[in-house]
Amino acid sequence: MAVGEFSFPDMKKRVAVIGASGYSGEELVRILLGHPHVELVAVTSRQSAGQSLAQVFPRFGSHPVARALRFTEPDAAALAGQADVVFLALPHGVAAEFAVPLLDAGCTVVDLSADFRLRSADTYREFYGHEHPAPALLARAVYGLPEVHRARIRGSRLVASPGCYPTSILLPVIPLLRAGLVRPTGIIADSMSGVSGAGRKAETDYLFCECNESVRPYGVPKHRHLSEIEEQLSLAAGATVTIQFTPHLIPVNRGILTTLYLAPSEAFSDAAGAAALGARIAACYAAAYADEPFVRLLEGKALPDTKNVVGTNVLELAWRLDARTGRLLVMSAEDNLVKGASGQAVQSMNVVLGFPETAGLL
Amino acid sequence: MAVGEFSFPDMKKRVAVIGASGYSGEELVRILLGHPHVELVAVTSRQSAGQSLAQVFPRFGSHPVARALRFTEPDAAALAGQADVVFLALPHGVAAEFAVPLLDAGCTVVDLSADFRLRSADTYREFYGHEHPAPALLARAVYGLPEVHRARIRGSRLVASPGCYPTSILLPVIPLLRAGLVRPTGIIADSMSGVSGAGRKAETDYLFCECNESVRPYGVPKHRHLSEIEEQLSLAAGATVTIQFTPHLIPVNRGILTTLYLAPSEAFSDAAGAAALGARIAACYAAAYADEPFVRLLEGKALPDTKNVVGTNVLELAWRLDARTGRLLVMSAEDNLVKGASGQAVQSMNVVLGFPETAGLL
Amino acid sequence: MAVGEFSFPDMKKRVAVIGASGYSGEELVRILLGHPHVELVAVTSRQSAGQSLAQVFPRFGSHPVARALRFTEPDAAALAGQADVVFLALPHGVAAEFAVPLLDAGCTVVDLSADFRLRSADTYREFYGHEHPAPALLARAVYGLPEVHRARIRGSRLVASPGCYPTSILLPVIPLLRAGLVRPTGIIADSMSGVSGAGRKAETDYLFCECNESVRPYGVPKHRHLSEIEEQLSLAAGATVTIQFTPHLIPVNRGILTTLYLAPSEAFSDAAGAAALGARIAACYAAAYADEPFVRLLEGKALPDTKNVVGTNVLELAWRLDARTGRLLVMSAEDNLVKGASGQAVQSMNVVLGFPETAGLL
Amino acid sequence: MAVGEFSFPDMKKRVAVIGASGYSGEELVRILLGHPHVELVAVTSRQSAGQSLAQVFPRFGSHPVARALRFTEPDAAALAGQADVVFLALPHGVAAEFAVPLLDAGCTVVDLSADFRLRSADTYREFYGHEHPAPALLARAVYGLPEVHRARIRGSRLVASPGCYPTSILLPVIPLLRAGLVRPTGIIADSMSGVSGAGRKAETDYLFCECNESVRPYGVPKHRHLSEIEEQLSLAAGATVTIQFTPHLIPVNRGILTTLYLAPSEAFSDAAGAAALGARIAACYAAAYADEPFVRLLEGKALPDTKNVVGTNVLELAWRLDARTGRLLVMSAEDNLVKGASGQAVQSMNVVLGFPETAGLL
Repeated sequence: MAVGEFSFPDMKKRVAVIGASGYSGEELVRILLGHPHVELVAVTSRQSAGQSLAQVFPRFGSHPVARALRFTEPDAAALAGQADVVFLALPHGVAAEFAVPLLDAGCTVVDLSADFRLRSADTYREFYGHEHPAPALLARAVYGLPEVHRARIRGSRLVASPGCYPTSILLPVIPLLRAGLVRPTGIIADSMSGVSGAGRKAETDYLFCECNESVRPYGVPKHRHLSEIEEQLSLAAGATVTIQFTPHLIPVNRGILTTLYLAPSEAFSDAAGAAALGARIAACYAAAYADEPFVRLLEGKALPDTKNVVGTNVLELAWRLDARTGRLLVMSAEDNLVKGASGQAVQSMNVVLGFPETAGLL
Repeated sequence: MAVGEFSFPDMKKRVAVIGASGYSGEELVRILLGHPHVELVAVTSRQSAGQSLAQVFPRFGSHPVARALRFTEPDAAALAGQADVVFLALPHGVAAEFAVPLLDAGCTVVDLSADFRLRSADTYREFYGHEHPAPALLARAVYGLPEVHRARIRGSRLVASPGCYPTSILLPVIPLLRAGLVRPTGIIADSMSGVSGAGRKAETDYLFCECNESVRPYGVPKHRHLSEIEEQLSLAAGATVTIQFTPHLIPVNRGILTTLYLAPSEAFSDAAGAAALGARIAACYAAAYADEPFVRLLEGKALPDTKNVVGTNVLELAWRLDARTGRLLVMSAEDNLVKGASGQAVQSMNVVLGFPETAGLL
Repeated sequence: MAVGEFSFPDMKKRVAVIGASGYSGEELVRILLGHPHVELVAVTSRQSAGQSLAQVFPRFGSHPVARALRFTEPDAAALAGQADVVFLALPHGVAAEFAVPLLDAGCTVVDLSADFRLRSADTYREFYGHEHPAPALLARAVYGLPEVHRARIRGSRLVASPGCYPTSILLPVIPLLRAGLVRPTGIIADSMSGVSGAGRKAETDYLFCECNESVRPYGVPKHRHLSEIEEQLSLAAGATVTIQFTPHLIPVNRGILTTLYLAPSEAFSDAAGAAALGARIAACYAAAYADEPFVRLLEGKALPDTKNVVGTNVLELAWRLDARTGRLLVMSAEDNLVKGASGQAVQSMNVVLGFPETAGLL
Repeated sequence: MAVGEFSFPDMKKRVAVIGASGYSGEELVRILLGHPHVELVAVTSRQSAGQSLAQVFPRFGSHPVARALRFTEPDAAALAGQADVVFLALPHGVAAEFAVPLLDAGCTVVDLSADFRLRSADTYREFYGHEHPAPALLARAVYGLPEVHRARIRGSRLVASPGCYPTSILLPVIPLLRAGLVRPTGIIADSMSGVSGAGRKAETDYLFCECNESVRPYGVPKHRHLSEIEEQLSLAAGATVTIQFTPHLIPVNRGILTTLYLAPSEAFSDAAGAAALGARIAACYAAAYADEPFVRLLEGKALPDTKNVVGTNVLELAWRLDARTGRLLVMSAEDNLVKGASGQAVQSMNVVLGFPETAGLL
């Protein structure tokens, strides 16, 4: 791996984060401060403007850049002159407004919102309740799941980084659909997410005492993330895919655990059939992910556990064939703020800029 | 409600708890100490023998009975002479050994283990890995789910109190199966349980640091509780039911949240169809549970949350029809140690003894 | 204990809770709904007006009164006509405004705010930053710590229920000061509180992700609760007492653990001296609390643990003499919402109304 | 900082960890796997022998070394031939047995146990209850607190890495004692620790349900860590120091928060006196720590919070003068497994080997 060309400080790329005061923004800052090939040159936040990164995020208080760099009001024109790459960690709808001038000014944009994840402006309207602010850009954006769309990301300047739930569902399911090993119908995804997924919003629902010692479903039966999940699954299946998706809120800071219920394309009725099918599934996953640094295929009796991936950009994956029901269960675990958000966004940036894909992420 | 006949201390029933030092046993003790119509006369525990209840469970330290009553070694013959009702909070396999002499001596036995939950000794062997210790008693035992088997519990002296996961699945599904509203095939139950469900076992897996900030599936794809769930569902459906069940461990002390994926017997394809089906489901649940003190049918947008049932004997239930997938989602929440174990056991005792069913449980 | 006179529904006292939508208010509602001698007739909350108790607090959803009773806008005149006893669970400063008309109308008022806890309006101004709204009432109010001021509470119609931290400090220290066993100088109280102590405020600081996996001091070195703690300790000591008090926020819903560092009045220099002093301390605490239903003096090696008191009105207490330093350590644990707030308020109400003091609290 | 000389793989130092299956061992492995100048060549664990690091610690499962390296039975002779540096993450008493042959064989030993932290074998016997296994080595060992003993660590081959509580107390207090700003008498340290401090022991006391929603003191009044704390403080003060120390267990995985109560050497009675004293304290801390990479002196209103240091080798520190009591409060926060154990051990190794002190720790 030829990393030499990025190893000189004067060749570092300049990056900015718009909307850096939320949980995803904070995690982006953490990763970028430690990234060997970029320099964090600007962070914006309306509410924190004027304060240094170290003041807003005391955990970065020992880093010289964090002590020096102050939040500014978001200003696309100013940022366009300062940064080569701009991350948008903004609410849906707002991100698109910034993307247009930044792209026009020649910046690479990695958007963590949902604004460019869909190809269809109609689907966007259906799920987000308003017209898309920049529909012309939808065709230009690439869905930033490197394990699936690496080649297209490489040549792009507008990356729509996937949502946390979608990542936990798409990485397990897409290889199986592409290989025709599971049916595109009847897919069920049951997910549990840590509270950071709700963002740093001062809402009663997310107070400590409302979340601690509690578990609850929410957003059933039609969560917004369904739109991008189904669009991506449909692409993989070559057919329209509609899934059942139930998110639950659990009292952990970080982590998503998703359990998927799938129907194998070919039924199996005995141990021999299960073994044969199992071999094909194992081969499918190995082909897709054995060489991927951020997907960990568990072996033996191991099952995913969010505590093994929190703080990392890794998604853990295990599967079981259930001879009693004929179903295939696939379980995944990820850190919703890393592989589910900021880590994956940096991974895509690494792909776009030609850095080693793991730079800053190990 | 004529409660007068139980209100005199000398008419209180004498109860004992065998295996009272675990979490279910502790919860049983808590409920029984506050029960108006019983007197706790004996608690046993090999490891705590000689210590008072107050010493082992400091939270009961202000209760005079807890300060006076000491744990003894379990001795069925001795207990048979002391108690009218004996609760068995023992591991599977051990409970049956105690049940036989206690029943012979005329005691009422409420067993919280799995030993008498199945009708079939063959199924017991398949799921528990050893021969049933007292197969002759299986036909005599009643499955202690009062909302479903109240009449049979009333006349029984051997109650097999249901497991925590089964309760969270059976109460939501049985009325729908009985009414023919959902198909008996393809049922999926995805459950999340607090750590007390694993018992007070000194195992590394259940240490604070191994469970906190973690969520993980376990026991897939064939959990032992499947046996009693499927037997009870089959009874309700009048046909053999095989379900998919995935338990997950989450970092809360108590509480089970179960999300069920069901297929309505009649498909619906539009809003009118959904409304008609929804009305039938609502009527079905109302008929089953509107008058039940321990099942709460949620209304409007409310969804179950374990924090609303922890410490109570109530199971919360909500449902949604998903027009996109044609499925019926039912979600339930309960306290695994109360409605999922000790509260339900006391509820059954109340039924057997003719007490008000809510005695000690409100 | 002659409880018969309160056992008929038509003799129940009518109670109202103003400001019932916070954590203390919710806990008050829980206790009052289960209280045998009162009827909850009104609950007020600006933000929840029009909704039923069961809608705002789903955990009460199975209680008929909670299903029927709706929150109203707070209106002192209306409440005065409806209720015999009114609990004020309001912010400091606001409570006094309601107390005046309610007292004028003949109601008994139990105030959970700080408005009537101090005798001195000057101290109130110093610690709360504004003039006292009703200074004339200060002399009339009784500090509602029944174990200390029972006789005065009995004849009062205005009870100032103590704060959560003060209760955890005053009950351990007052008997020692009264007996002259410890010096009134140099007292240090180090406390840890669960997050419910901060109230149900939608502030970023109390979001799940900001409190979970975190412990932090706050409000140092001059917390508002110092004013009432020092006033009460000074009364007990017969001299001005100034203490050091450091509160910390820890990730539990409920519970306060306080560790107190005290200097025995007479130094001890050997084991015999420690034993003699220890006997006097033990006797002092026994005299003060052995017959108190809500103070538990721990024995042997037992130390307080909030999990043993959460959900109860009990304060646990243990002490140790440290021969190495000559200090006396006293440790207490309580539920900040029960003995530290709502339970204690109901205990005072029981005293005022002549009910058994434990009514509704066991 | 000349790091070039360590940047070639063939110049990496070989390190081993004996007792790598506990929480400190796991954290050591995490740090060493990412350390640029060392190669982890051996890990030992009786219970995990034969398994790979990745099997025992799934979170390391994506690291090639963790997939390849298997735990072995601990064998000092074998390790002496394999490694330049050996970390001992063993129980007290056992560590010394390994240290002797490893030192004899020329290895550098960094011991995380208490075996070499004291100069006095008598104190060891008093606090640990058995004779010291290798008293001759006590004089040779250096107490591994680099901010205090850096020069001596540099030339040592036996580093006794400090305990977690001691670090949280010594770093705040030593500069003040050395400068004569606080009295060496009457020091009180009140600490709260996460549960990982108890180690990965399968004991009921540390089960999730026993620690969650709980806070409790323990080990009062004479905790073992007092011995090393007092010895180090006495060295700094030039006089025998006896302190009061109360540890509490709180439900977080990691983190220690310590609040210290100190008496300034010169009393202050007004704002001007406080300001003058405050300036001297600020100058003292700045002189001690302004250039230290792993001590963060908080500014303004900021107070320590464990969540800002967890996962890092940083200790946060803030102080307040209390004009009401005349005391100085100092508060510190650290990760008990990093700055309180494994991170600090690696920091000492970096000092011994002449690596940049922050290598592997940023």
